[in-house]
Amino acid sequence: MLALAGGVGGAKLALGLARVLPADRLTVVVNTGDDEVFHGLHVSPDLDTVMYTLAGLANPETGWGLAGDTFNSLAMLRQLGSDAWFNLGDRDLATHIRRTQLLNQGVTLSQVTASLSRALGVDHGIIPMSDDPVRTVVATNEGDLPMQEYFVKRQAEPVATGISYCGAQSAEPSPGFVDAINQANRLVLCPSNPSLSLGPILAVNGVRRHLETFNGLRVAVSPIVAGAALRGPAVKIMAELGEDPSCLGVARQYAGICDYFLIDHQDASLAPAIEDLGMAVVVASIIMSTEYDKVALAQEILDLPGVVA
Amino acid sequence: MLALAGGVGGAKLALGLARVLPADRLTVVVNTGDDEVFHGLHVSPDLDTVMYTLAGLANPETGWGLAGDTFNSLAMLRQLGSDAWFNLGDRDLATHIRRTQLLNQGVTLSQVTASLSRALGVDHGIIPMSDDPVRTVVATNEGDLPMQEYFVKRQAEPVATGISYCGAQSAEPSPGFVDAINQANRLVLCPSNPSLSLGPILAVNGVRRHLETFNGLRVAVSPIVAGAALRGPAVKIMAELGEDPSCLGVARQYAGICDYFLIDHQDASLAPAIEDLGMAVVVASIIMSTEYDKVALAQEILDLPGVVA
Repeated sequence: MLALAGGVGGAKLALGLARVLPADRLTVVVNTGDDEVFHGLHVSPDLDTVMYTLAGLANPETGWGLAGDTFNSLAMLRQLGSDAWFNLGDRDLATHIRRTQLLNQGVTLSQVTASLSRALGVDHGIIPMSDDPVRTVVATNEGDLPMQEYFVKRQAEPVATGISYCGAQSAEPSPGFVDAINQANRLVLCPSNPSLSLGPILAVNGVRRHLETFNGLRVAVSPIVAGAALRGPAVKIMAELGEDPSCLGVARQYAGICDYFLIDHQDASLAPAIEDLGMAVVVASIIMSTEYDKVALAQEILDLPGVVA
Repeated sequence: MLALAGGVGGAKLALGLARVLPADRLTVVVNTGDDEVFHGLHVSPDLDTVMYTLAGLANPETGWGLAGDTFNSLAMLRQLGSDAWFNLGDRDLATHIRRTQLLNQGVTLSQVTASLSRALGVDHGIIPMSDDPVRTVVATNEGDLPMQEYFVKRQAEPVATGISYCGAQSAEPSPGFVDAINQANRLVLCPSNPSLSLGPILAVNGVRRHLETFNGLRVAVSPIVAGAALRGPAVKIMAELGEDPSCLGVARQYAGICDYFLIDHQDASLAPAIEDLGMAVVVASIIMSTEYDKVALAQEILDLPGVVA
């Protein structure tokens, strides 16, 4: 199984899948369009969220960062004059220090991620979408903002007028991503922001085309329920970009690369319009609050019949 | 006043001098031969010890590091597979992260040090001996060991057979060092290890020659009292290198660049031999346990008559 994931929302389903699939049967490919250099350190927010979640180390209150982390280094960085608006805990910082050190030694991001995951006891494959740099930039009424600046520093307040994935066209999918596309018999588009989290993955050179001809069942889970994003600015940004801010709007983005689209019971009335896009709709309980919810949703995805009726 | 200092011992006298001299009348030039890259971060142990000491932030128990620091990041670095034998606290780490970031942007070590010092409220000038890389390497019965590996990792246990200051001959003294040599009317060689801490400073291109013709009074304070180093492996390494492991042995290293040599009352009997080297001996209380001791010794240095009798 190949799962495509962004940060917190994607990590929830990735955890569910990891609970029901052995390590050699699940590859989670993660968005790196949010990657940013802070204080000279390479930070991969989505990779870390998925890694910490699968390692059982994630902060349960925020979904990102490490449970029980301290912030002494960041406080000192501020005292030393650094612009430290991005929260980085002391233990979390070690991840970025180690990653940066290895990258500077010429190790690929895929290899770094594998090494970090192994060290944290994660057996399932966590793979960056590309070892080449891709940067998601949100065009707004305040100018172009790199993803973290838009999302964290400006709290997604500026009005979005467009999204670009700088570098994506010339970025190659990572070797593990290519292998998974060729070998997996099921693809899951996790309930992540379609434009900001899965958009960059789909924009990597050749990826959408490969998924259009993917040799297996393709399942997407809506990140929007009853016109509200389960997390983050998905609805706001979709509305600003003139898209339908609903699970129907999400489904439109996945037309041609999705066989089953899972929506919540509250959105059942949208099923016909989504089916018109050429995908089967499954109405289910897709809000994942507890680990039980995550495992149940993962199992539901696994139980989908291999051929769409 | 121009003071040359290594780490903890030098920082003690530097603090005393800073207490009795206004900011524009004291420049502390610090050894960078101990600088090392850990986890991809540029660490300047002696600069930081002097900076933290003058900022009133140093750990009073160790003399190095920050008082009350935590070590969560280092623990995580170990978990991630890093070889973390050099103790780096979370707040201390911020200094190295910030320094590395600025150095990678092309800022000189002098400018970085000035920026960090300012941010920590240090008004007196703290200046690296050079903006060029110099590395103190101890040749031992176990092979060549860079300073921190010899001193911290191996706890100065290997038998030293020689010391080299790699890069020193082609390293230029930092601009602030040159200014201080030209403008100061008093030079103080702080009670630091003569070979490992002040040796690198004196080895920087042209420095010893400049100090031989220094236009002012030159004062050295012995780091050895009654045949024992006040701190660190000075006596052990001097003995291994065939030098006299006493304040007389130290004085021999400063012959030609020292007018007054301060030794402890316990070493008064060595005064004649030291005077034979061409310097006046001052017998004083040179052990600095309390801040009062530091200030008193600094004042004693300031009170020395400007012309050697």
